[in-house]
Amino acid sequence: MQRIEQRASFGGRQEVWEHHSSSTDTAMRFGIYLPPAALAGQPCPVVYWLSGLTCNEQNFITKAGAQQYAAALGLIVVAPDTSPRGEGVANDEAYDLGQGAGFYLNATQQPWAAHFRMEDYVVQELPALVEAHFPATDKRSICGHSMGGHGALTLALRHPGRYASVSAFSPIAAPSQVPWGQKAFAAYLGEDRTAWAAHDTVALIANAPERLHLLVDQGQADEFLAGQLQPERLQAACQAAGHPLTLRLHAGYDHSYYFIASLIGEHLAHHSQALR
Amino acid sequence: MQRIEQRASFGGRQEVWEHHSSSTDTAMRFGIYLPPAALAGQPCPVVYWLSGLTCNEQNFITKAGAQQYAAALGLIVVAPDTSPRGEGVANDEAYDLGQGAGFYLNATQQPWAAHFRMEDYVVQELPALVEAHFPATDKRSICGHSMGGHGALTLALRHPGRYASVSAFSPIAAPSQVPWGQKAFAAYLGEDRTAWAAHDTVALIANAPERLHLLVDQGQADEFLAGQLQPERLQAACQAAGHPLTLRLHAGYDHSYYFIASLIGEHLAHHSQALR
Repeated sequence: MQRIEQRASFGGRQEVWEHHSSSTDTAMRFGIYLPPAALAGQPCPVVYWLSGLTCNEQNFITKAGAQQYAAALGLIVVAPDTSPRGEGVANDEAYDLGQGAGFYLNATQQPWAAHFRMEDYVVQELPALVEAHFPATDKRSICGHSMGGHGALTLALRHPGRYASVSAFSPIAAPSQVPWGQKAFAAYLGEDRTAWAAHDTVALIANAPERLHLLVDQGQADEFLAGQLQPERLQAACQAAGHPLTLRLHAGYDHSYYFIASLIGEHLAHHSQALR
Repeated sequence: MQRIEQRASFGGRQEVWEHHSSSTDTAMRFGIYLPPAALAGQPCPVVYWLSGLTCNEQNFITKAGAQQYAAALGLIVVAPDTSPRGEGVANDEAYDLGQGAGFYLNATQQPWAAHFRMEDYVVQELPALVEAHFPATDKRSICGHSMGGHGALTLALRHPGRYASVSAFSPIAAPSQVPWGQKAFAAYLGEDRTAWAAHDTVALIANAPERLHLLVDQGQADEFLAGQLQPERLQAACQAAGHPLTLRLHAGYDHSYYFIASLIGEHLAHHSQALR
């Protein structure tokens, strides 16, 4: 494991690491913010951030402004890349499939199955690495944006007990019913839609074994709201199942990091409360 | 004048505008953050931010995290591009000369003199535009980073009475004595070094007609500290002239936007106090 960036930030340190992942069988990069408490040797709980389509490990750490809140709250924040990458890794010319678009699942179809194993990476391998090499406790929360919001919600629902809390910005909450999700699931999981339901938040809600509260923020000027995000489907599914949901709609906000930056402090405070 | 971006941010709005500049005789872009008070129609004072080498109007508005503080303090923050750009504009292959490296002066030498008139643009044209088209008062402060720190300090020193306050991150404070400044000044101003002194903070301090306090933050792990920045020259000049300076050195911090983000809140609070 090799540290490739190290930046002082709000009294703590923003780092970027690269390592060989046994899940994806590629090099993987992740950002990790170590708050002042962690630098002083105090074990801190960890919030995992999952980014959206086209992002790598840099977008969140340079644009979200999360470090100041993580510093004050004593949280480690880990932001992995969104897919395996590299010359030997399958790809697609489109921005919404292949490298930069891993959808946080283990692909079962060729040519993706060899490396696109982001669920194993995010849920198992990365936390084990973080907890072994940094002053981290085994308390974890998870959040993300867009494709990463889908990732946070589905991984929390698929792994009950593993996360103290979960939140999402502008998530793809019903991927089986929108173009982004249909394209990715057909490629990664095949045409059998029963396999899709296991990675679809709205489909998972009905029989969720753990009724973990979902905090979801959505901008009403989001250019993908009607076509790809459709939070009303999430609201209906939660109401039908009695699943606790806080869905907040924000007038004027779009799909960009300006929206995330405006509310990431509230999300980290929410996770901090659950993690203590 | 055309608005090319509009993003809700911390209850206010981050916008980007493009217009034809009579100073540079090119199209110019600038970012402008309008805090909630300005959106409600209340005239707000304006802080001008000048970015460093290679930057355009995007770097500060996407990476510094200034919007939250500007929102709370009721400040408009304007961040122009760092030079004229375009096909008909002179350029150099190097990152530290030409487009992206205007050094906030009016060039007198060819081929630069036709368009590289950033001092006129930043000091006169841009404030006139901002004060005519947005709910801005005529109270102005100025700050910047690296080449933009040089810009903020020299423009405040060269235009006494125009700015209520000035601050800089990691400024090129003695450009006549370091490689970045020597290369740019020779190209833009010619080989006569007496012309250089009029755009060099350390040289200007001795006879400054206004003893405006300088707030300067500098990271001690800055990769350009010894070679290009040399804040000890600024400190010596201020001591010799009795010019008020607050120079703060920060262990571990480098030249990046992680440093700016960590302290921009303190700079905006400083400017807000002077602007009221």
